Amino acid sequence: MPFTPFMNEDFLLHSKSARLLYHDYAAKMPILDYQCHLPPAEIATDRVFENYAQIGLCHDPIKWRAMRNFGVDEKYITGDATDKEKFFKWAETVPHTMRNPLYHWTHMELKNPFGIDMLLNAQNGEKIYEMTSDLLQSPGFSVLGILKKFQVKLVCTTDDPIDSLENHQMVKETDKGLVMLPTFRPDKAMNIRNILNFKIYISDLQKITNFEIRNLVTFTAALRERHNFFHQMGCRLSDHCLERIDFTEHSEGEVSRIFDKALIGGQIEEKEIAKFESFMLVQFALWDHAKGWTQQFHLGAIRNNNTRMMRKFGPDSGFDSIGNFSHIKSMAAFFDHLDIENCLPRTIIYNLNPADNEAFATMIGNFNDGSIKAKMQFGSAWWFLNQKDGMEKQINALSNLGLLSQFVGMRTEGRSFLSYSRHEYFRRVLCNLIGKDIEKGELPGEYEFLGKMVEDICFQNAVDYFRFDKISNSL
Amino acid sequence: MPFTPFMNEDFLLHSKSARLLYHDYAAKMPILDYQCHLPPAEIATDRVFENYAQIGLCHDPIKWRAMRNFGVDEKYITGDATDKEKFFKWAETVPHTMRNPLYHWTHMELKNPFGIDMLLNAQNGEKIYEMTSDLLQSPGFSVLGILKKFQVKLVCTTDDPIDSLENHQMVKETDKGLVMLPTFRPDKAMNIRNILNFKIYISDLQKITNFEIRNLVTFTAALRERHNFFHQMGCRLSDHCLERIDFTEHSEGEVSRIFDKALIGGQIEEKEIAKFESFMLVQFALWDHAKGWTQQFHLGAIRNNNTRMMRKFGPDSGFDSIGNFSHIKSMAAFFDHLDIENCLPRTIIYNLNPADNEAFATMIGNFNDGSIKAKMQFGSAWWFLNQKDGMEKQINALSNLGLLSQFVGMRTEGRSFLSYSRHEYFRRVLCNLIGKDIEKGELPGEYEFLGKMVEDICFQNAVDYFRFDKISNSL
Amino acid sequence: MPFTPFMNEDFLLHSKSARLLYHDYAAKMPILDYQCHLPPAEIATDRVFENYAQIGLCHDPIKWRAMRNFGVDEKYITGDATDKEKFFKWAETVPHTMRNPLYHWTHMELKNPFGIDMLLNAQNGEKIYEMTSDLLQSPGFSVLGILKKFQVKLVCTTDDPIDSLENHQMVKETDKGLVMLPTFRPDKAMNIRNILNFKIYISDLQKITNFEIRNLVTFTAALRERHNFFHQMGCRLSDHCLERIDFTEHSEGEVSRIFDKALIGGQIEEKEIAKFESFMLVQFALWDHAKGWTQQFHLGAIRNNNTRMMRKFGPDSGFDSIGNFSHIKSMAAFFDHLDIENCLPRTIIYNLNPADNEAFATMIGNFNDGSIKAKMQFGSAWWFLNQKDGMEKQINALSNLGLLSQFVGMRTEGRSFLSYSRHEYFRRVLCNLIGKDIEKGELPGEYEFLGKMVEDICFQNAVDYFRFDKISNSL
Repeated sequence: MPFTPFMNEDFLLHSKSARLLYHDYAAKMPILDYQCHLPPAEIATDRVFENYAQIGLCHDPIKWRAMRNFGVDEKYITGDATDKEKFFKWAETVPHTMRNPLYHWTHMELKNPFGIDMLLNAQNGEKIYEMTSDLLQSPGFSVLGILKKFQVKLVCTTDDPIDSLENHQMVKETDKGLVMLPTFRPDKAMNIRNILNFKIYISDLQKITNFEIRNLVTFTAALRERHNFFHQMGCRLSDHCLERIDFTEHSEGEVSRIFDKALIGGQIEEKEIAKFESFMLVQFALWDHAKGWTQQFHLGAIRNNNTRMMRKFGPDSGFDSIGNFSHIKSMAAFFDHLDIENCLPRTIIYNLNPADNEAFATMIGNFNDGSIKAKMQFGSAWWFLNQKDGMEKQINALSNLGLLSQFVGMRTEGRSFLSYSRHEYFRRVLCNLIGKDIEKGELPGEYEFLGKMVEDICFQNAVDYFRFDKISNSL
Repeated sequence: MPFTPFMNEDFLLHSKSARLLYHDYAAKMPILDYQCHLPPAEIATDRVFENYAQIGLCHDPIKWRAMRNFGVDEKYITGDATDKEKFFKWAETVPHTMRNPLYHWTHMELKNPFGIDMLLNAQNGEKIYEMTSDLLQSPGFSVLGILKKFQVKLVCTTDDPIDSLENHQMVKETDKGLVMLPTFRPDKAMNIRNILNFKIYISDLQKITNFEIRNLVTFTAALRERHNFFHQMGCRLSDHCLERIDFTEHSEGEVSRIFDKALIGGQIEEKEIAKFESFMLVQFALWDHAKGWTQQFHLGAIRNNNTRMMRKFGPDSGFDSIGNFSHIKSMAAFFDHLDIENCLPRTIIYNLNPADNEAFATMIGNFNDGSIKAKMQFGSAWWFLNQKDGMEKQINALSNLGLLSQFVGMRTEGRSFLSYSRHEYFRRVLCNLIGKDIEKGELPGEYEFLGKMVEDICFQNAVDYFRFDKISNSL
Repeated sequence: MPFTPFMNEDFLLHSKSARLLYHDYAAKMPILDYQCHLPPAEIATDRVFENYAQIGLCHDPIKWRAMRNFGVDEKYITGDATDKEKFFKWAETVPHTMRNPLYHWTHMELKNPFGIDMLLNAQNGEKIYEMTSDLLQSPGFSVLGILKKFQVKLVCTTDDPIDSLENHQMVKETDKGLVMLPTFRPDKAMNIRNILNFKIYISDLQKITNFEIRNLVTFTAALRERHNFFHQMGCRLSDHCLERIDFTEHSEGEVSRIFDKALIGGQIEEKEIAKFESFMLVQFALWDHAKGWTQQFHLGAIRNNNTRMMRKFGPDSGFDSIGNFSHIKSMAAFFDHLDIENCLPRTIIYNLNPADNEAFATMIGNFNDGSIKAKMQFGSAWWFLNQKDGMEKQINALSNLGLLSQFVGMRTEGRSFLSYSRHEYFRRVLCNLIGKDIEKGELPGEYEFLGKMVEDICFQNAVDYFRFDKISNSL
């Protein structure tokens, strides 16, 4: 009875034009994953996963949330149940996720790389568990094997400034057929709110740099040393995850005193935190600008909302959500502060609350000065929004208020090696939107031009924007 | 010329799959109305309405707004015109409401229960007035008759803690073929902003409880007494209507002093109001949790915006609207405050500003801990949003960011006995969304599974969630 | 291969009903442009433009933004390149604007008035530049010629209170076949934030009124004198462009002292600015009310976000964007302040952030009291939102939460004589939405009624609402 079979080769492609753009242009492009949370060690060691739970369930808080929602006991989520038991509970949950993107992700992941076409449920959970476990042990299903199946050419991981980057060194030295670059993500270096952790962080930073950190000057010098080291290791992006950019005017003297107060364990007030963060963000941006990096801002999440669970399981366990803030003017003030001295780096802003899409999409226009193509980017849909509805809204807002043609496109953002199917998803969504416009007479049927535009968004725009071609000959 | 006749049996069902899901599954389910504003006395006395104006116009501020917008004099809205005159003005207005949900509601109400298929307008207003008046006097059109036509099995009314619940008692004692339960809605018990009314409220609370209320302790004790009484009367839900949850840290000592100040007529500051409200919300939540109730929050409305009209007609006369607040973090803090002691009850949050849908839909994930299926619910579209566009946005946000399959579904929320057609509306919208996904290959054609899911959302999920089966054998 | 050719006569009309409503009703209606930024002098002198760059590029910051985004050097945007060179850079950019409304605007403008059907690009840029330049020199392509082609009957320009309105006088005295009325836009008279400019403004105001402005009383008296003069000149609308209405309680005494402080160059604090602005907004509203004018509020923009560019090019150079504010309650308080004394004029609120559409669409219901048809209007999509997606969202929000039938409809808002094609765009979008509803059985196929409704929204509602028929016999 359904007119279109579920998830066939034309999945999400609801017009001839969409199918043409996807199959003839998008599908064949390799993947350049300029932002993800894949563990570098697993790439460096070419990890072989034991089973599906290990590769696709045990580190995926979005799946955990669905299971908790479905009333699954924590034992089967983060607890001491076996991988198999956890997978069975997940299999039981899956049919009840219909209309949630997890239903799509799950079956796209089974299809690619596993080649399994069944709809996962309580009945076939055991069979699918065994099939996937067997495959994961077979040739071509190691981490590098999977990346190859997905045509991944380059991966930018997410790394703390104090990370030794030894795994990146290892990959660099051997020919893995893959470029793996680090990303400078100094969230912890800014988190003066949690003084205990902040002091531990400073101590670790001292160790790795051999700097004696006594004050703000030596603190920033040590971080800059790491920034330099990251650059040598091929890093070309920084990343910040913040509720919002709460840019506050400050002097270096003030911030010095705030830093000193933190070191001796004094209570830091909200206003002071904002000043310290503003100062640090400016430093990072100046360094990024000087080295030609791109800075990224992931904005709009509120984190660790469930203290009880936070105490049990720590951060990133599935208790974060979407915030709403009146933060747009403050964001503009930050970029203006950098731009006024002509020191604003290439910048990507990612938005977690779709209500702010239009504000973000017009924000970038404030700081595109013609010096670099699409210097300011409205980043692809993030986290909870990294699904069809979220992607469509981001693509449409960017199209209506900016230039879709200049978009650097999709990145997995994920920490699972299976999440590369999201690139396929993004590409289908993108081609579907463009295809629909053609068929409705809202875009001309210039397939060659639009096909090229699709290819650029899938791959080439990112190569050009991040200038990865200067790092690797293979790009 | 139109491809689909207006409002035929497949109204809003734009695909074969949608029609199948609606007609074979959704349409036959009874109604469990877990939140409405129907007057208990009219159910207890099985009121017979004189005419359409009495049942469908004289208590409907949304219709009044449309009439005022259309330039109708207040005389014909809340003034001293006859019911017939008012109805004629409404009939004249109706064609000009095209594209507004009122155009749909009005004709759905005429169709069911009245069986009238005409499109109401100035020309046929008199005829329709007479037809409906005649029907309302005929057997089967009393309140209970109408509820029976709509297959309403259970109704939760909205009641003030000081309500005697005598009507509920009356219904309980006779066999009405309908379960009517009260809901504990203590808005007035929190409204310390209006000290005059607050003191009157305390006086009424004293009367009904025979408590001497001298301070915060006796005040909360008296309310708890009512909470206990409501529980005996079968109440299983509380409800709060707030602009937003402005959760503020407070001590019981502080709040005691604020209460004392209010009693002697002192000026209460905004900060103090927030502390008092926060304290009271925590009390109510603790009681709800202890008794296994569900707490509901209707958030986002700004009320009585028109002082001139407020003075003339009082509250709830059609001068409320949608607010916008940066309130999400504060809401999270409130739920966390309860959850940290493992005292967070089942909770439904209703959102009035669609811009916040995604924030609400992810908020519930922060506090679903697996202990109860879908313990936190993102409630169905509310008030102004209780229409196709609002319903679709709520269902889609919930689907994308939570589990639609676990949704407790629709409630009328209305104060008119005709508003049960909104359940039909909701069910059509729901089936249409799911059906479209099937036909586009975005859901598998598993009609039996999806049909069951539709049935659950229409009825069974609510029975299970609120555990109404433990109250009535008929559920 | 495309099913529908690009931008043919049925552009944006995706159903038979839509095509019927557009071609038989909407298309033939004249244009009443009640709000635009067209330069009065160019109408008064019936300017003949040299080339396309002069009429369509050199004053269009939205096109500049796209060019900067595409990496075009400022020389070719606002710099000293020739008109031809600038146009070529624009031609090169155009294909890369696909999916942006600019791609539609550009080709609609080429089609009407120029009759050119080609798709502009780098290859045919020279040819199109020559064709349009030639046409612009030919009869019927002067300003008045173009307005005639578009069937523009009335234009309300946007004017500062200190404007002499000599151009309006000139048009009034000759028979131009066009009514041109001024609009009172006192933004500069409220901008006490920039004290230097404010004092210059006062000086200019003194000159034109011959008032000696020493204090708040004489300042407002001088402005009122101009308000009276504007009224004599046929002005019937005021307009305010604000981030938000930050209504703050104030006394006249307080505001007097703030004004005095400004005059002697004292530092004005944020709170004082809010009080001054609130006071002035109330004055303007009272005058508007007394004269039966309509007040307009353009809300939600944040301006001049790029200081470096602001210093180079001044305001309105393409560095503004969409803000997000929690401003809805404050807006309600302002309207209530006026309404409480029954002094609230007809009011149109324009919203720049689509996330606030629903709040705006319900806000108007708070102050519709039945005295005037649709006294409060939710204005058509503004600036960045003046495109298909923005229009659809505004029309849908208004439909769902108000009465579309009473809408005063579209105005160009633009400063280009080519921007009248946006009326055609709006009308197509409007007919498409209504047509789709008919074909889906969500509206009855009452083409005559709905056709009349479309005509009214296109023209007659505005004539009635602004009572322009009392100003000109031709309306």
